Amino acid sequence: MKQLDDVLAEADGGLKASLARLFALLRFPSIATDPAYHADCRNCANWVAAELNGLGFETQIRPTTGQPVVVGKYAPDGLPPHAPHVLFYGHYDVQPPDPLDLWVSPPFEPEIRKNARGDDAIYARGAHDDKGQFMTFLEASRAWLSVHGSLPFKLTVLIEGDEEGDSSHLERFLAANKEEFACDIAFVCDTGMWDEATPGITTRLRGCIHEDVTITGPAIDLHSGYYGGPARNPIRVLAKILGDMHDARGRVAIPGFYDDVEKFSARQRAQWAKLKFNGKAFLKDVGLSVPAGEEGYSALEQIWMRPTAEINGIFGGYQGAGSKTVLPSTATAKVSFRTVRFQKPAKIRKAFRAFVKARLPKDCKVSFVSAGGESTGLALDEKSRWLKAAEGALTAEWGKAPVLLGSGGSIPVVAAFEDILGVQSLLVGFSLDEDAAHSPNEKYDVKSFHKGIRSWARIIAGCC
Amino acid sequence: MKQLDDVLAEADGGLKASLARLFALLRFPSIATDPAYHADCRNCANWVAAELNGLGFETQIRPTTGQPVVVGKYAPDGLPPHAPHVLFYGHYDVQPPDPLDLWVSPPFEPEIRKNARGDDAIYARGAHDDKGQFMTFLEASRAWLSVHGSLPFKLTVLIEGDEEGDSSHLERFLAANKEEFACDIAFVCDTGMWDEATPGITTRLRGCIHEDVTITGPAIDLHSGYYGGPARNPIRVLAKILGDMHDARGRVAIPGFYDDVEKFSARQRAQWAKLKFNGKAFLKDVGLSVPAGEEGYSALEQIWMRPTAEINGIFGGYQGAGSKTVLPSTATAKVSFRTVRFQKPAKIRKAFRAFVKARLPKDCKVSFVSAGGESTGLALDEKSRWLKAAEGALTAEWGKAPVLLGSGGSIPVVAAFEDILGVQSLLVGFSLDEDAAHSPNEKYDVKSFHKGIRSWARIIAGCC
Repeated sequence: MKQLDDVLAEADGGLKASLARLFALLRFPSIATDPAYHADCRNCANWVAAELNGLGFETQIRPTTGQPVVVGKYAPDGLPPHAPHVLFYGHYDVQPPDPLDLWVSPPFEPEIRKNARGDDAIYARGAHDDKGQFMTFLEASRAWLSVHGSLPFKLTVLIEGDEEGDSSHLERFLAANKEEFACDIAFVCDTGMWDEATPGITTRLRGCIHEDVTITGPAIDLHSGYYGGPARNPIRVLAKILGDMHDARGRVAIPGFYDDVEKFSARQRAQWAKLKFNGKAFLKDVGLSVPAGEEGYSALEQIWMRPTAEINGIFGGYQGAGSKTVLPSTATAKVSFRTVRFQKPAKIRKAFRAFVKARLPKDCKVSFVSAGGESTGLALDEKSRWLKAAEGALTAEWGKAPVLLGSGGSIPVVAAFEDILGVQSLLVGFSLDEDAAHSPNEKYDVKSFHKGIRSWARIIAGCC
Repeated sequence: MKQLDDVLAEADGGLKASLARLFALLRFPSIATDPAYHADCRNCANWVAAELNGLGFETQIRPTTGQPVVVGKYAPDGLPPHAPHVLFYGHYDVQPPDPLDLWVSPPFEPEIRKNARGDDAIYARGAHDDKGQFMTFLEASRAWLSVHGSLPFKLTVLIEGDEEGDSSHLERFLAANKEEFACDIAFVCDTGMWDEATPGITTRLRGCIHEDVTITGPAIDLHSGYYGGPARNPIRVLAKILGDMHDARGRVAIPGFYDDVEKFSARQRAQWAKLKFNGKAFLKDVGLSVPAGEEGYSALEQIWMRPTAEINGIFGGYQGAGSKTVLPSTATAKVSFRTVRFQKPAKIRKAFRAFVKARLPKDCKVSFVSAGGESTGLALDEKSRWLKAAEGALTAEWGKAPVLLGSGGSIPVVAAFEDILGVQSLLVGFSLDEDAAHSPNEKYDVKSFHKGIRSWARIIAGCC
């Protein structure tokens, strides 16, 4: 452990310089979704490339159908042939900063001031998402290389520029270069801690699939006086079907929906129970009070590990002010399913369509559109060596075992690594819910940055 | 009957002159909804006033909040004190004629040509709705006066100019002058025959009330990944409630909804059954095949005499292309009820609101808006002396008893007469479904016009 202690000391001693580098990075207004900032994106990519180059990585700025990606490769001659290959991922693009007048300090002029708890924090757009986060890994690598001269694994660093916008650019890039990016594990630093004192590893992500369903009744809109009664109203048909989609206990009533859903591990459930997550307070924050999900599961379990069927939008007939006496020809619902590991999107779509068709009156028609993207539910194997290494490292650094977090949403890049490269991801990050990612006054605690660097140093040590 | 025969002979002999007067009236482009034609509306009102004046009625053109109304009063000294007071209603405004290029002859240059059955018909905007129709009564009065010198009742003629637009103008006028328009019965000539050979009297009109219902769940739109499961989705809540609004037999499931609905009279039901109305063909015309209304009632009964609950529109959440992973804060349905005589709008609204509230999860809110107008269901008493007079007259003229028709929709002026003047209406008209009211090539058969005049002469005789 002497060698690790040296790395940690190096990281501690170099913190000021690490912060200076982060500040330089934060000054680029790398807003990829706004063409006015594309030159800034390129300048930012150049800066990242220079950093990777300075670490001794073979560095390229590669074109994509969107913003360029920065790729740094580290594969020194001295590595043993069985040394693992790690892909580290981050992104240099940031969300637009508006509304600007809500920022205490300008979004691209980073400064350190006290957060609400009185601790130092870095305030800037991207301080947390994702510049501050991905720099923790690069600074840990710098400290490690400074002490040891070499990393204990082959490393490919991939820093992209379209995470906040269109994820298909990176997907196309990976698909076109999948042999080149073959690896054993992807490290991703773009997620958060459980709370300010408790580290987290995000091991579960729900997938998401979308199905638009349109019911057509009469061939044209009808007068509700002249036809009301005998004529079929597609809004009524749709409402009835959607009303049947859940049972009285909050379960999805589509036959076969839960077939492939895995059981909770007792260890996982026990850890989550210990968190004493206040589901009521969580709901109260958004004006609700009664958990509406499946009976028998806590709010946290419902979000992190149970699939859902939701209606994201609905429309049909007249929607203006006043009234219109119409029986519309069509009604549409935008339905989506949050899925968990092992649920197959094609099977879920098929089950949903069969469910709708089974309830369709003879003289109605139905059409389905698989709108939007599709992602599968993912989970990191509980027995993964990378997970064990990270758990040990984070426990040592923070004095507390990390919570194995779920995320109710999907992270497209993790799905892309799984689907295109066939590799799982280790999601370790140090952000806090309070960090205001995507909002004015985004911040990243200096403690997150500093202990983040130290955490990654420990994880690197754990991979030896 | 000698005296009636003389009137009928007078009507027959005067047909050419009657048609000439109708043609003059049809040449006014009295489109009240378009300000560009307001001068034409006034000219048209002047023309109608001159006609009434020529009949010996005390005539005024009266301002309203919309177009002027023409009022003609007939109350000769010689009438017995108990002579009834009849209010005759028609409207001189017409629908806009566009699309103009679909008209065979210009809409305001009336001409007679053969209809699809090879009979003479008058083609022009307003030929049927309502100029041709209301002129049948005025020409019958003219023939009657020409033979007898006086009508057998006190008469107020009211020809308005906002029927195709905003009915509130006439309602305000009636409310402001209700003593002046007090009468025993209103004659309205703005409805149709059962078919080309069978006269009709419209004795039932459904009312209509509107209720917008908005369910609010979370205080803000939520991310369906981070909240999907425990968070209440108001679209789901709304769909479930609307899905419950009808039972499996097509009946409205709102408790108390049918409380005040009258039973069918056996006579009425038998007459309708004899019509052999083809409900399947009726539905097939609009792309449907399965009657969706209450089991146990024919399509005609469902439209003419049974109340409905319908959803005219629904909206909530995302409605654009692709997908948005949102759990919306609100969802709204625009609901309406077609009501029949004796159903009280306030009671129906209350029952609906209670039905919704009984199904509302504790942490959702609901708001209701009574959007749009409100009309009550109406029916002319089967024992009405006016109805008996009209039935006898129409049977004599057409050689066939008239069908006592229902209308699934409401006619605002009839509701206004009932609500404001407290008087029922006798709805007799001679238009056909094929007449293309509101459409290009609107027409009115010469037979409708001629026998319409004769029919009113017989009704006047029946009132003696």
